Amino acid sequence: MEAGWLAGQRGWLDLPSRHVGEWLCDRSRGCRHRLGVRQPGLGRCDSLHRSGQCSLAGARAAVGFAQPGRGEAAAAVRRRAIGRLGPNPRRMGREPETLRMITVYGFSPSGNCHKVKLLLEQLGRDYNWIETNSAIGETRTPAFLDKNPNGRVPIIELDDGRVLAESNAILCWLAEGTAFLPADSWQKAQALSWLFFEQYSHEPYIAVARFICGWTPGDSPRRADLPKLRERGHAALAVMEKHLASNPWFTGAAYGIADIALYAYTCVAPHGGIALDAYPALRDWLARVEATSSFVPPPAPDAQAQALIDQSS
Amino acid sequence: MEAGWLAGQRGWLDLPSRHVGEWLCDRSRGCRHRLGVRQPGLGRCDSLHRSGQCSLAGARAAVGFAQPGRGEAAAAVRRRAIGRLGPNPRRMGREPETLRMITVYGFSPSGNCHKVKLLLEQLGRDYNWIETNSAIGETRTPAFLDKNPNGRVPIIELDDGRVLAESNAILCWLAEGTAFLPADSWQKAQALSWLFFEQYSHEPYIAVARFICGWTPGDSPRRADLPKLRERGHAALAVMEKHLASNPWFTGAAYGIADIALYAYTCVAPHGGIALDAYPALRDWLARVEATSSFVPPPAPDAQAQALIDQSS
Repeated sequence: MEAGWLAGQRGWLDLPSRHVGEWLCDRSRGCRHRLGVRQPGLGRCDSLHRSGQCSLAGARAAVGFAQPGRGEAAAAVRRRAIGRLGPNPRRMGREPETLRMITVYGFSPSGNCHKVKLLLEQLGRDYNWIETNSAIGETRTPAFLDKNPNGRVPIIELDDGRVLAESNAILCWLAEGTAFLPADSWQKAQALSWLFFEQYSHEPYIAVARFICGWTPGDSPRRADLPKLRERGHAALAVMEKHLASNPWFTGAAYGIADIALYAYTCVAPHGGIALDAYPALRDWLARVEATSSFVPPPAPDAQAQALIDQSS
Repeated sequence: MEAGWLAGQRGWLDLPSRHVGEWLCDRSRGCRHRLGVRQPGLGRCDSLHRSGQCSLAGARAAVGFAQPGRGEAAAAVRRRAIGRLGPNPRRMGREPETLRMITVYGFSPSGNCHKVKLLLEQLGRDYNWIETNSAIGETRTPAFLDKNPNGRVPIIELDDGRVLAESNAILCWLAEGTAFLPADSWQKAQALSWLFFEQYSHEPYIAVARFICGWTPGDSPRRADLPKLRERGHAALAVMEKHLASNPWFTGAAYGIADIALYAYTCVAPHGGIALDAYPALRDWLARVEATSSFVPPPAPDAQAQALIDQSS
């Protein structure tokens, strides 16, 4: 079971999760906000309805938006709303699977980890973040390997101890039943195709070039790999540019998790010596991602990494 | 909309695709066959019901199995059944999205391509296969790049010209609403996690080591990469071995697309000089995959590739 956010309050509806994605469509002029849903049968006077909601195509549901103010994180809006309204009795005793409290083990400079933070912020979800520095072996401790034998961040851990690894699988799970992943089977498959493209044809070149430039010593033998990595990174960006020449997003008709996944390392490609000048449609897309509601930018490299990046150009 | 196979005939039911996965569960002692479904409300005398069907847990649906004989491909069973029974009038005028005729562009020795063939065979789907030799540049022609700007096989093309790339995204699309991908959100996410593991931590080492050994000249400079590729390939196999010590499958409770994806290159890892002797649970799992219904093995390397493989050991 899944639940829908009711505009401005914690109003849970016990809907099968598969319905949420089907009924929700965002008419807020391309901006994306947290969505609330009411069941089709509910009238405007129902306690779960709230003025200011927008009717949706087909009158199957109504959606309201709790819009963050300028510079305000979605989580802050949610906390404010919860504080004002308190729990909804309809929700008592139920905890939808996808709304359990989440702990993220992540390394902040990692684009793979930032993907998860960005989606959680844009979903308005509360979460704990445990900084786990993979560059100094914190993903190779016995305690961490017990959670993920593959020794990589990010992972998410639910409050009952279950763990999910692989950044793009985490995005899919978090986005299921939300507007960040299309409900249409073919569109969803296209989004998945871009997620696999990102992990196979994009990240291993663009992210690795960046890592070598900023997080290995200036005399690392790995720097010999940079020309090949940059060549293949540019090949990936050219594929993206071709798509963006006739499509505004990678997830489907609207912004979503394939955009989040591809944004994560594309926006920092210049750290690895991969300039974006030759890709105008791609630069426009980066700007559109950065204009989405509740967007949070990746952190700037620390002084040591920035110095190494500057030396690598 | 999706449709269910009725046991032994082409009996379509217009069910939302999300319900098919939910209602189907295979009680045939771990063997996997093509599944038929009837709506919960239908009685045994309904024209869509057929003797020999099995009742399912919760009496929500009934499932029948069109079992292939020993050595018989599922597609042959399907063709035989269709020839005997003819079209069902309830289906006239409808063609479910996921049951359109599919053309696969694939290179037979590629494990990524074999994944798609294996699932199509096990689903009992008809398809066209267009052999596309990526080793001699057939994925870099203008005509192919027009279909997939990333220049890789496999891709699938629907009869209306739409194209889907990335082997694991193709598996997800084909498997949606079938028993090859769990309907449960968390289980599905775990399967996706293994699919991303396969493309990021497994294929780039095990498949590439194999390719270098069998499909590049004996004096290729790429052979210098083999020690590192083999080391990382073994690391991936160790992660799989750990999982298989307490789980029979990667997709969830039953065999499915994460098993298909991981099987594809694991079974041929020795071609790349990556022996499987140290992984007993993994070898048992390979045998279980090979015992599934309608399993088709990957083709043996041709004589030239086999000679190069033999020289590389």
